[in-house]
Amino acid sequence: MINIGVLGTGRIGKIHIKNLLNHTKINLKAIVDPHADKEFINSINIPCYEDKKAIFEDDNIQGVFICTPSNTHYELIKEAITANKAVFCEKPVDLDMKRILEIKNLVEQKNAFLQVGFNRRFDSNFKRIADLVKEGEVGALIHTQIISRDFMPPPRAYIEGSGGMFMDMSIHDFDMLSFLTQKEVETVFVSGASLVSDYKDIDIDTALISLSLSDGSLASIHNCREAVYGYDQRVEVFGRKGRVFCENKYDNSVSLCNATNQSRQNALDFFLERYLQSYANELDSFVQSLNDKSKAVVGIDESIKATLIALGANESLKTKQTVELKKIKNSFGI
Amino acid sequence: MINIGVLGTGRIGKIHIKNLLNHTKINLKAIVDPHADKEFINSINIPCYEDKKAIFEDDNIQGVFICTPSNTHYELIKEAITANKAVFCEKPVDLDMKRILEIKNLVEQKNAFLQVGFNRRFDSNFKRIADLVKEGEVGALIHTQIISRDFMPPPRAYIEGSGGMFMDMSIHDFDMLSFLTQKEVETVFVSGASLVSDYKDIDIDTALISLSLSDGSLASIHNCREAVYGYDQRVEVFGRKGRVFCENKYDNSVSLCNATNQSRQNALDFFLERYLQSYANELDSFVQSLNDKSKAVVGIDESIKATLIALGANESLKTKQTVELKKIKNSFGI
Amino acid sequence: MINIGVLGTGRIGKIHIKNLLNHTKINLKAIVDPHADKEFINSINIPCYEDKKAIFEDDNIQGVFICTPSNTHYELIKEAITANKAVFCEKPVDLDMKRILEIKNLVEQKNAFLQVGFNRRFDSNFKRIADLVKEGEVGALIHTQIISRDFMPPPRAYIEGSGGMFMDMSIHDFDMLSFLTQKEVETVFVSGASLVSDYKDIDIDTALISLSLSDGSLASIHNCREAVYGYDQRVEVFGRKGRVFCENKYDNSVSLCNATNQSRQNALDFFLERYLQSYANELDSFVQSLNDKSKAVVGIDESIKATLIALGANESLKTKQTVELKKIKNSFGI
Amino acid sequence: MINIGVLGTGRIGKIHIKNLLNHTKINLKAIVDPHADKEFINSINIPCYEDKKAIFEDDNIQGVFICTPSNTHYELIKEAITANKAVFCEKPVDLDMKRILEIKNLVEQKNAFLQVGFNRRFDSNFKRIADLVKEGEVGALIHTQIISRDFMPPPRAYIEGSGGMFMDMSIHDFDMLSFLTQKEVETVFVSGASLVSDYKDIDIDTALISLSLSDGSLASIHNCREAVYGYDQRVEVFGRKGRVFCENKYDNSVSLCNATNQSRQNALDFFLERYLQSYANELDSFVQSLNDKSKAVVGIDESIKATLIALGANESLKTKQTVELKKIKNSFGI
Repeated sequence: MINIGVLGTGRIGKIHIKNLLNHTKINLKAIVDPHADKEFINSINIPCYEDKKAIFEDDNIQGVFICTPSNTHYELIKEAITANKAVFCEKPVDLDMKRILEIKNLVEQKNAFLQVGFNRRFDSNFKRIADLVKEGEVGALIHTQIISRDFMPPPRAYIEGSGGMFMDMSIHDFDMLSFLTQKEVETVFVSGASLVSDYKDIDIDTALISLSLSDGSLASIHNCREAVYGYDQRVEVFGRKGRVFCENKYDNSVSLCNATNQSRQNALDFFLERYLQSYANELDSFVQSLNDKSKAVVGIDESIKATLIALGANESLKTKQTVELKKIKNSFGI
Repeated sequence: MINIGVLGTGRIGKIHIKNLLNHTKINLKAIVDPHADKEFINSINIPCYEDKKAIFEDDNIQGVFICTPSNTHYELIKEAITANKAVFCEKPVDLDMKRILEIKNLVEQKNAFLQVGFNRRFDSNFKRIADLVKEGEVGALIHTQIISRDFMPPPRAYIEGSGGMFMDMSIHDFDMLSFLTQKEVETVFVSGASLVSDYKDIDIDTALISLSLSDGSLASIHNCREAVYGYDQRVEVFGRKGRVFCENKYDNSVSLCNATNQSRQNALDFFLERYLQSYANELDSFVQSLNDKSKAVVGIDESIKATLIALGANESLKTKQTVELKKIKNSFGI
Repeated sequence: MINIGVLGTGRIGKIHIKNLLNHTKINLKAIVDPHADKEFINSINIPCYEDKKAIFEDDNIQGVFICTPSNTHYELIKEAITANKAVFCEKPVDLDMKRILEIKNLVEQKNAFLQVGFNRRFDSNFKRIADLVKEGEVGALIHTQIISRDFMPPPRAYIEGSGGMFMDMSIHDFDMLSFLTQKEVETVFVSGASLVSDYKDIDIDTALISLSLSDGSLASIHNCREAVYGYDQRVEVFGRKGRVFCENKYDNSVSLCNATNQSRQNALDFFLERYLQSYANELDSFVQSLNDKSKAVVGIDESIKATLIALGANESLKTKQTVELKKIKNSFGI
Repeated sequence: MINIGVLGTGRIGKIHIKNLLNHTKINLKAIVDPHADKEFINSINIPCYEDKKAIFEDDNIQGVFICTPSNTHYELIKEAITANKAVFCEKPVDLDMKRILEIKNLVEQKNAFLQVGFNRRFDSNFKRIADLVKEGEVGALIHTQIISRDFMPPPRAYIEGSGGMFMDMSIHDFDMLSFLTQKEVETVFVSGASLVSDYKDIDIDTALISLSLSDGSLASIHNCREAVYGYDQRVEVFGRKGRVFCENKYDNSVSLCNATNQSRQNALDFFLERYLQSYANELDSFVQSLNDKSKAVVGIDESIKATLIALGANESLKTKQTVELKKIKNSFGI
């Protein structure tokens, strides 16, 4: 049994807490959140503290889940690693590449365990596509496409602290692209637009991102902050031997045919519901890695890769030019 | 919080135990199984007893889940009701109609709570179809069809104590038919065959069951003990305003198109995996009913209805004639 | 080039005429219909006569298409065979089994060519299913199911002369069953109902037909004279190695997802549109057989088989018993 | 009846000839092709001439179909218009924008009828999508996507005279984009690659084309000269009220589920088969326009629009920059 502490009990914290409670190899020992919802804490019957010392100074706790607001991740990861805890941190590690690289150095110096919350890699659809690509079923890649559209735009206040569309939303897709293709992104070009939100002055809400990969193949990512028909999460990988793709996920597969037409309910529209199983699978991976004493399946390097593409996308949006990622890398001396 | 005891820790018992542990309004207080798997018991950290007294004589336990072998259900339900417990019992209540009717009397005398494990009613596909039918979306019924095929035949030893195909397997579909149509079955006719099993001398393994309902509409049930392509669970309700139907459930929605053809993985083939969510929903219904002090959503009457159809089917198989359920009812004085 | 004459220019006659005109190996030489629609005749520029002699006495005409009302088929087939024409006759050959057997004798005596219009055998869906079954892709048969529902009931007057539901509508499905399974039907049992029509006093409009085949496998046919969601023509063949099935056919594959749901247009609802290509393929088969000097792919024997099942179904409807086709056969000395 | 002459009897000429022969309002009077396939000409029984005078100087011929090699279109259109014929010309009108503009002037001066062969507008899938967009079903546009992949690359010799990927292949998609959105393209950016062909030195074979439209919405076109799984022709229009999309077209809708997986045949892979019906519908539109004395539904203006985008794409491929179509237009004084 692994003893775990959780920092933060917001929307995503609750998901992780539920999965930790259900996991047969985990003992959820402590929660820290000075503003925790009391009803929730009572319902789960796990001690909740105001001070993070309750976790960091408890030698019986081997691992910590960081589910606090994004701007606290950097400090908490450092503290957790210093306290010799295995760390799971929700994405993003940080918005500032220099600080992410600092974390990377710390991880390497301390030989620490750090898993980053790119949960979509653990979704049964995307996992299967990645497997088929890896097994060579589509052959040499030609075009990889990711469609990722939220159900509703977040509030303006959220956008202000989010780091912008690419750092906040597309970053999942940048990681997905690495995961599916196992290739490096070389160039990025962005067509952006503000079509669906009320914060057009501070961020775009729609993007068509064109990328070229290290094997010469192409990729495209379609992002939009709004899709009235539900949370749209589809992928297609097209190669010389074929194409592999997935549909959205639904609560049920019931169709109604009447005199008017044929219809079915929309796909699941809430990300927690859509990706419910992926969070549980992600935890399995965490436990597996700890038990095997292996590196995290998704760690700081994956975070760096995705962040580099986001930085490139930001620059392309500004310059309206194709951006070579090599130059971004060079600017950070990597 | 409701304190619950569980009798039996076999395949289905484990499912219920897992769901009970995860349920926020339930406290799993005791398990009884003289032959329980120790590793499993250790992993969940709940006291396990050899003697059922540990549950029946504990006044703090309000409800009991009966997950023991079928031939013990009758006695255990009686004991549980006598001990004033709310009861959830896996199907079948019993194979003998007289004993089922005895349970019905007891439930009514004691005003007891008894829920029967027809879990498929809580599946998102069938629930949605039943809702659409209830809301009048297909209009007056014309033809209801249920296809229900197992992945693999059970071993011969299981069949011997099962009560036969209709009592053991089709009974789920008989209940489904009542659930979907909210109509009474009036006649039943069976075409049976032995095509896939090694126990042809003791039971059929394939059936096409033709039924007529109280509104004059028709129904058919296709059963087979084997479907190499996975566990096949589909329903179609056809009426004057349209038809509603569902597909099987899949782990993922990934398709591969290559030079040969287009393909996807088969549907989920194991009933526990296929109906995982339905067991959790079934438990929610149990908790809800107890909290509302209402009757079980699926109780002894539903068990009786399904059993009557199974008896009719058995007779039709023997006589090769259409059987009127009224006659079966009369023979039991109901 | 084969010179052809057509008798009858009704709905189905026009379809055949159009296909004959388009066929590169056919010269449509004469049409006979005393009540032909003049505008239609003018538009195609083919001579149209009142007297059938124009066809039967023209030695340059090798083949004749009989598209007149059903009750004239028997006489016209005899005349055509006597005049040494290759014959294509729309279904049914006749409603009276004795007269069908008489035609069979004539065909054999004269070594005549007679193709019967079971056009559905030439549909790309059903053809493909039959091929896969023939190639052993589903293994030994377990259950074959045919769903065949018309869009709208025909007028009462049509029903009066139709020979009843089994002779008129189900006969296509009886032939389809032979085509798909290549097995003989041994028993038939019918559940009939009158649920959608205004002619309940003279015929049923809904049927669930249960059949057993010579290999011990089961089959079911669902018929209804009304399906508000379109013309419903589906088949599923289930065997020990798998199942093969088809969906309905659509004008387009466009779906719309909006805030309400996901929808698409209904399947093609008019039989001429749904089976358009099958009529053209049927003609190809006719031409091919004539060129190869081989027997018709669908001939008088197929007509007899389907009619026997229809007779059995009629008897089962009357007696409410399972009917053995052997007895029907015996009654005709075959 | 409209009397028509056809120039050219190649692959596409044969398609038009077949449709012209089947059309009830058309009389195919003459064919001109000095190298016509004699067997074909004999089979259709229409006079075939070597000299185009047979058509241009026959005053009874009202319309002409130009199905000759692309580099002859310009001269033949001029001759045909001068001879006062209604003209249907296969795409492209020409590869040189100046010559296309010359044709436009001629059409306007002479008030001539010229229809261009963008047949895909008449496909039931794309027609339906365009209709739904026009009816406002998807609301204000956000992102329109066209996937258009050939089954196999053409031979090198064909590419040499083709005008390149954008002029030859993507031009259909550029027209489709105008058709679906009814918006003007403002900018175009191209990511091109050579991944599947043996003519990498003279042309690309893969492209991801990013476009912005006059309403601020985005669009993307995916082209590839090879798709081993069949001819891939899909479209998705995503807007504020929903998304509408289509699947590929198939010969049949049969699926096989066996112990391995579920599979179906690939989509139709040959463009003539895939778009068969669209050519017949295109002809209907031609006849309708002539009868109504209205402008061609797809005329010289549509040809100019699509060509402008192709020119922009060519420049973007060369400069690796986003190209504004306004500049291209200006360079032609339009």
